[in-house]
Amino acid sequence: MERVFYNGHIRTLEKAYPECEALAEKDGVILYLGTSEEVLRRASPDAERIDLRGGHVLPGFADTHMHLIDYYRMTQRIDLSAVTSFDEMAEKLRRRAAETRCDEWLFGANFNQDHWDVQVLPTRRELDAVCADHPICIQRSCWHISVLNTRAMELVRLLNEREDTPLYMEFYPDGTPNGVIKENSQNKIYENFPVPELDELKRWLKTAMYAVAEKGITEVHSEDFQAFSRDTRELVMQAYIELAEAGEMPVRVYQQCLMPTKEQLERFLAQGHRTGETHGHYKLGPFKVVNDGSLGAHTAALRHPYACDPGTSGLPLYKPETLHELFSLAHKNGCQIAVHCIGDASAEMVLDAYETVMRETPRADPRHGILHCQIMDADLQERFRQLNVIAYVQPVFLRYDMFIVDECVGSELARQSYNWRRFCDLGVHMCGGSDCPVEKFDVLPNICHAVTRSDNNGAAPWYPENGVTVDEAVRMFTTEAAYAAFEEQVRGTLAVGKYADLVVLDRDIYAVAPETIKDVQVEMTVVDGEIVYRRQ
Amino acid sequence: MERVFYNGHIRTLEKAYPECEALAEKDGVILYLGTSEEVLRRASPDAERIDLRGGHVLPGFADTHMHLIDYYRMTQRIDLSAVTSFDEMAEKLRRRAAETRCDEWLFGANFNQDHWDVQVLPTRRELDAVCADHPICIQRSCWHISVLNTRAMELVRLLNEREDTPLYMEFYPDGTPNGVIKENSQNKIYENFPVPELDELKRWLKTAMYAVAEKGITEVHSEDFQAFSRDTRELVMQAYIELAEAGEMPVRVYQQCLMPTKEQLERFLAQGHRTGETHGHYKLGPFKVVNDGSLGAHTAALRHPYACDPGTSGLPLYKPETLHELFSLAHKNGCQIAVHCIGDASAEMVLDAYETVMRETPRADPRHGILHCQIMDADLQERFRQLNVIAYVQPVFLRYDMFIVDECVGSELARQSYNWRRFCDLGVHMCGGSDCPVEKFDVLPNICHAVTRSDNNGAAPWYPENGVTVDEAVRMFTTEAAYAAFEEQVRGTLAVGKYADLVVLDRDIYAVAPETIKDVQVEMTVVDGEIVYRRQ
Repeated sequence: MERVFYNGHIRTLEKAYPECEALAEKDGVILYLGTSEEVLRRASPDAERIDLRGGHVLPGFADTHMHLIDYYRMTQRIDLSAVTSFDEMAEKLRRRAAETRCDEWLFGANFNQDHWDVQVLPTRRELDAVCADHPICIQRSCWHISVLNTRAMELVRLLNEREDTPLYMEFYPDGTPNGVIKENSQNKIYENFPVPELDELKRWLKTAMYAVAEKGITEVHSEDFQAFSRDTRELVMQAYIELAEAGEMPVRVYQQCLMPTKEQLERFLAQGHRTGETHGHYKLGPFKVVNDGSLGAHTAALRHPYACDPGTSGLPLYKPETLHELFSLAHKNGCQIAVHCIGDASAEMVLDAYETVMRETPRADPRHGILHCQIMDADLQERFRQLNVIAYVQPVFLRYDMFIVDECVGSELARQSYNWRRFCDLGVHMCGGSDCPVEKFDVLPNICHAVTRSDNNGAAPWYPENGVTVDEAVRMFTTEAAYAAFEEQVRGTLAVGKYADLVVLDRDIYAVAPETIKDVQVEMTVVDGEIVYRRQ
Repeated sequence: MERVFYNGHIRTLEKAYPECEALAEKDGVILYLGTSEEVLRRASPDAERIDLRGGHVLPGFADTHMHLIDYYRMTQRIDLSAVTSFDEMAEKLRRRAAETRCDEWLFGANFNQDHWDVQVLPTRRELDAVCADHPICIQRSCWHISVLNTRAMELVRLLNEREDTPLYMEFYPDGTPNGVIKENSQNKIYENFPVPELDELKRWLKTAMYAVAEKGITEVHSEDFQAFSRDTRELVMQAYIELAEAGEMPVRVYQQCLMPTKEQLERFLAQGHRTGETHGHYKLGPFKVVNDGSLGAHTAALRHPYACDPGTSGLPLYKPETLHELFSLAHKNGCQIAVHCIGDASAEMVLDAYETVMRETPRADPRHGILHCQIMDADLQERFRQLNVIAYVQPVFLRYDMFIVDECVGSELARQSYNWRRFCDLGVHMCGGSDCPVEKFDVLPNICHAVTRSDNNGAAPWYPENGVTVDEAVRMFTTEAAYAAFEEQVRGTLAVGKYADLVVLDRDIYAVAPETIKDVQVEMTVVDGEIVYRRQ
């Protein structure tokens, strides 16, 4: 199939040939770039001709950190945040029940009985009255409380708990659980949440991939192996591989392979899997671990105590020797590595471990990286350059974090943290992602935050000198994202011989006021020359 | 093995970190770059420390077109250019005979009897008197005449020719050949020249590779399959592979796979060989063919007749349909392609064929190229950009060609030819080579000619506006050469995680007067962190 996209404003991101009007592709590969006249003239008579109507084209966006399965599950939650009575909630749950098979969970999110007409926390039997055959779980907006109906309590095997349980849950006067589960004991629910069958999971993934395509995204680096609070790697890989081999992946997925334990990694390697294994649009990416928590919960591992909470400095989730053992195994076997680090102590540990394994087993071009890269001083940042480690950042996190970082770590360190400007100046490979479902997988707001350093809601910009240019921000979601997947030769810019992965926007984000970039619309998304999304 | 190279002036060719003083490597991979103090401080106690004594370091040079076997054979010729008598020549031949086994050919090059005391062309029996047991072949400096002794005539199976032969050769009055062979009939000699045994060929290759290392070269793109005027591909590959697997290749070789016929290419593919097959330092490069001759011989294929020889416009060596058939086979099978084109008609044919196969079978990142790229107008040059075709050029050719191009093609076309400036401006990937043994495999004079556009011998520069900067010229022999071998991720600049391939020079070629770059000395050559050459 040959297609010509003409009458556009195309930015190639190639230095010698930065702009053109038209692009021809065949079978997914770019054949020509040039003026509309010349590209149309060279086209085969049977080429499909697509008028871009002056649309603004960039290489397709990539999101270098998100969770496709978790995203899908989030979309299936029943949003209870605006509900004002138990009956209104019950109505929403019943409506969903009527649309779904009775073995499917009804998961209601963000209820808050304090906003109801009768301010009473519902319990198991009230939920049974709403619907007894579907399992129901509703979570309060504070995330500290969930309530389950009887069917759900049975499925998560909590119905037989009694008051002597170590779990944080409540009971009826008759001694049976009333369905209210609190704090970390909620993990017992989520660990026992159902895992879909293969075909169902494939349907979820397809739905999620078409959703990302609507945002101009042509590749996601997705982390999915532990999406169900347990190891479902083999099922997840099978689902992706079957979709890929059937040509049913509208976008490319570079799998971030979260495997918290050595046993999981050993099994993965023993099965012959490595970074770079490719099945059509599905490619295995880095071995991943999570080394600390979050800033808001004061679980990100800092080198000094939290300024606002001097009793803690967070805690790394791994010991240095365990990190070394895991990294050594992955590195020697040719895998890329990526680690979640929010705090500076966490990043320092990981950089130390990278330095050690790279010295013990020198290997060309390993492209190890750190995800989030939030709290760090200039010396730690310099180590990214020294070790040639990739920084994966989430510019949109700034929207909330700008209000808490200074109080968490003090302004001296805050000023050096989230310093995307300096990563660029150091020549560190820095790529961008949303961490969806933590944030929406929308690239344009991310570009906007990276440039403006503002919440785009009226607050003064936060250390605006640490922002990047529009072009640098665009590259975080295109060329640098391709680099992070070892694919800069074939993606990330528009050049003859590269894949025809494009996003078409309604405005030129290089020309509009930066704070309005978030409002720019995606008109069309093209992967391998195929139009996978077109705005109606 | 860990090594630290310190106290140098290192140019990394990396944008964000262009200069440093020291570099640490281990097992061939760069571990750090920085100041001498910091790199020494980080080194292991047992690391070898190498004082660069202020030497100027660049990424190791690459020569992207040469002939290692032909080079070795050239070095074995007995140079007769300064000889002034038959006896002096005889003495030189006898001295070599005494040093070699009697089955080895004595090949004397560049004799000219017009400079002798007795100006008579020698014949077979005079050469037999010099030495009858070794085969002898001497070639006149004009290259149009060779003379063989009886043993040599037997070996090339010409001794039984008589005056009715279609060959262009001379005879004694007794009707037997007198050993004088002329013009193209000399091919009969070279086609029958002996091919060395495997171990001998390996020794030749090693000698040649150590010689290139002395010039700061860490990788050559070498064309060797037809070095003996016949197809010795399997022998040549075996020699390289055995050397590579034994770790006996001091430099990297990217093999340019000259295979003039479809049958040769089919056999190569049927054996499973493809561009990219790698054995240690030996890697298979592009499928190669030669599509025209040379400018000096008026055999380069031009679109218009030679201005100085209106009866000819040269002739492409392939028909368009044959080129298409060959390219299609190579391209569909995932091979890179490179074609010798000197004239504009030849280049146009090849670009047309590339365009066709790239459209028929779109394939990501094929990196096809044209070797020499001499005569062409601005429109043809533009097609390199349009098709993303690599230009392999030999800047040192300018030294002679600057005196003949205007008269061959007229100044209007000459002005547009050898236009390296415009290739850079177009963003065309342009890499440099020597075509050794046509020219010496010396990179510094090539850089010098590329910049000065002068013969460095007093003549006025030739279209100096078509020259490049020193940095652009250096990149032709480093980063762009790595690109041409699909290795820009691991070579061509100095960065952590790339191979420690270095050249150390006695001066800073970015700072000296460009016309003196040719006089800069190579102090040291490093491949995979190993010192493969050090100036005494």
